[in-house]
Amino acid sequence: MKTVGVIGGGSWATALVKILCNNFAQVNWFVRREDQVAHILRYKHNPTYLQSVEFDLNQIHVSNNLETIISRSDVLIVATPSAFLVELFKDTTPELFKGKIVFSAVKGIVPEYNAIPARFFHKTFGTPYKDIGIICGPCHAEEVALERLSYLTVACQHETIANEMARMLACRYIKTTTSDDLFGTELSAVLKNVYALASGICSGLGYGDNFQAVLIANAIQEIENFIDEVSPIHRDVKSSAYLGDLLVTAYSKFSRNRTFGYMIGKGYSVKTAQLEMDMIAEGYYATKCVKEINKKFQVEMPILEAVYNILYEKISPVIEMKILCDKLT
Amino acid sequence: MKTVGVIGGGSWATALVKILCNNFAQVNWFVRREDQVAHILRYKHNPTYLQSVEFDLNQIHVSNNLETIISRSDVLIVATPSAFLVELFKDTTPELFKGKIVFSAVKGIVPEYNAIPARFFHKTFGTPYKDIGIICGPCHAEEVALERLSYLTVACQHETIANEMARMLACRYIKTTTSDDLFGTELSAVLKNVYALASGICSGLGYGDNFQAVLIANAIQEIENFIDEVSPIHRDVKSSAYLGDLLVTAYSKFSRNRTFGYMIGKGYSVKTAQLEMDMIAEGYYATKCVKEINKKFQVEMPILEAVYNILYEKISPVIEMKILCDKLT
Repeated sequence: MKTVGVIGGGSWATALVKILCNNFAQVNWFVRREDQVAHILRYKHNPTYLQSVEFDLNQIHVSNNLETIISRSDVLIVATPSAFLVELFKDTTPELFKGKIVFSAVKGIVPEYNAIPARFFHKTFGTPYKDIGIICGPCHAEEVALERLSYLTVACQHETIANEMARMLACRYIKTTTSDDLFGTELSAVLKNVYALASGICSGLGYGDNFQAVLIANAIQEIENFIDEVSPIHRDVKSSAYLGDLLVTAYSKFSRNRTFGYMIGKGYSVKTAQLEMDMIAEGYYATKCVKEINKKFQVEMPILEAVYNILYEKISPVIEMKILCDKLT
Repeated sequence: MKTVGVIGGGSWATALVKILCNNFAQVNWFVRREDQVAHILRYKHNPTYLQSVEFDLNQIHVSNNLETIISRSDVLIVATPSAFLVELFKDTTPELFKGKIVFSAVKGIVPEYNAIPARFFHKTFGTPYKDIGIICGPCHAEEVALERLSYLTVACQHETIANEMARMLACRYIKTTTSDDLFGTELSAVLKNVYALASGICSGLGYGDNFQAVLIANAIQEIENFIDEVSPIHRDVKSSAYLGDLLVTAYSKFSRNRTFGYMIGKGYSVKTAQLEMDMIAEGYYATKCVKEINKKFQVEMPILEAVYNILYEKISPVIEMKILCDKLT
């Protein structure tokens, strides 16, 4: 059996370690801060996220030494914010990554490269695409902590590896499906944050549930148009990995992207909303990155454009959304 | 300009009258009960639904005489529960219906015929299909009362008539799109109630948001498979009329179908849930009707089957949903 390592100390990384503990005698776990490692080793839970999840210390090897965790693991699952990826791996050598299978659970775009993590790993460490995969939802980490039935989609161009990862994750409360859509699933997972943000803005402006339904129906079409252009393979965006993931985020009161958008809709400035929330809304960066990527592809994306104009061009949400309304069907 | 009449005294009928009052000097309105007519004429609002909506009595001609309302109207919009349609029109003659344009806002199946209202009108009054249309959401009547921006889809095989109705309904807070999918939009509007019911059952059983997202993603695929088989024309079920309508119902805390399902999931019997709610959950009847229609088409519909088994075969929701979980992806 292969060895596995999770990289990241956030809620999604913590949930993944919990899931893997169902199938592995030992799970390697990299968390960045030394005090976080010490807390986990002493109190058996992450100090900051999913505190209710108790780990069996015999089952986890937790460390803030990235090199050790990488070298001890055949399969790596990376679950850190996309904005930290480059910094985190700056001292890692291609040698260390040799032969590794790398799965991204990032759901983000690496801003320095305007590329999804899969591409970043491929370019930086030479990992062949067939050894790179994606783990995507619909899955709130909080519900994994509660052991509520959730479905994960594992995407990898190499079918055997996809199946293997699907088996690694499947347990009493996790069902898994596989896909070969490496690029589409990650891009869709990225875009959903932009639409959750849009949904929050509209809610903040006072638009209701009727409008929200129209917005989301238009959003999944926008996702389809974009990923079909960027990575033209056969896919059905009505599947859980695309539509399901969009729904769980855009309809969630707990989504930080939605909350961030809501504050913008209520009139907060981007700066104030960020300070107030004290966390990063991935959708904020994703909006800019996708807008950048789309310069090449020129897909019509009215919702993304509206969010971009509000966040980066400082156009009033009231006006921008009014204009958007005429473009939705 | 054509004259228009709305048939029905419920919340959706009331909302439609309000909408039409933006574009018509006079709207004919049939409500069944005499005391309801009297109340509206005296207090300017419907006594039971959307009480906040005040009507200008110069603008509405309200009556409980069906024949009068029909004869005074070139265009009829029918918005009564589907279970009452046959009874309501039992004394109406094909002569009275001659030359009328008939729009269904019923979103249901006529149980006596296992057919959508369009087919019922066609068969009973000989109205040609080109003169029959559908008005569909996503649209909670309650949000129309609040004048929150909503989108309606008008479907009719006759493009001119679809466009005309779209113009009749469009106003400050209503945007309209047209479609030629007479059968698909109505069947989708019917099915969404079944899935809202399923969503309620799962919520009552303790399934969370992650699962709900998977359920709805699977539901829209089930809708597509069914309507593509029953009425094979080109359509995109990701449009507002299908997916949007499903979302606004399945994610709404106000949906009676969802509430009904929730009670079933919590262990209420069908009878008790019905008594407790004191209203009809359309999805209850729809489940049986669609199951019946599907005998001919044999589309795989695991969610519908599960709901049917729970409601009509008295199989435990716990067991039935556990079986369903293995069929979802």
